[in-house]
Amino acid sequence: MVQYSQSVDASFAALSDPTRRGVLQQLGHTEASITELADKFHMSLTGMKKHVGVLEQAGLVTTRKVGRVRTCRLGNRGLEEEAAWLEQHRRLWAARFDDLDKVVDELKRKEKSSE
Amino acid sequence: MVQYSQSVDASFAALSDPTRRGVLQQLGHTEASITELADKFHMSLTGMKKHVGVLEQAGLVTTRKVGRVRTCRLGNRGLEEEAAWLEQHRRLWAARFDDLDKVVDELKRKEKSSE
Repeated sequence: MVQYSQSVDASFAALSDPTRRGVLQQLGHTEASITELADKFHMSLTGMKKHVGVLEQAGLVTTRKVGRVRTCRLGNRGLEEEAAWLEQHRRLWAARFDDLDKVVDELKRKEKSSE
Repeated sequence: MVQYSQSVDASFAALSDPTRRGVLQQLGHTEASITELADKFHMSLTGMKKHVGVLEQAGLVTTRKVGRVRTCRLGNRGLEEEAAWLEQHRRLWAARFDDLDKVVDELKRKEKSSE
């Protein structure tokens, strides 16, 4: 349970940066070296290494080093838990606003009948 | 465009904490004062105020103060953009692993035919 929460914490934190989201989208199409990612996102190698490290810690990316090149690809975590959390929240959120709509409708009805 | 990214950054960052996710779930059922939320999550008032502040900044919660009581409810943002991002990523992720499956199947076929 704690493991679950920690993973979800780490992946939401990893997703809070636009470069890291961009890297995930890029790796969704094809694997890439850290150098290629740094070039694509106009970033220093050191900066990109840090971003990839955060994604790797969250299980969203895996890397392997062959010679001097470290290649990145999508990791084993497919964000199912995070998607499920968001979906559940969206349902609750929509229901809350439906409730508000009903209250407003009720007020309008009462106002009309008292005219 | 920047506005879009900043909102998504802020909401994913807000979701990276289990207490803040818990507060959102709680407010999905009913509105609550900061004191009630602090009690429920066994946290100091100051700690809870900070968490609510992060959620408010991200547009996920709104608060209003009546007398000395600040009441929290779900904000206007229903996390549609975040859910859409996750869904797109999940599709790419699944496709990547389907591709890998095909490569493995192909290798197995070749191995079998060369036996």
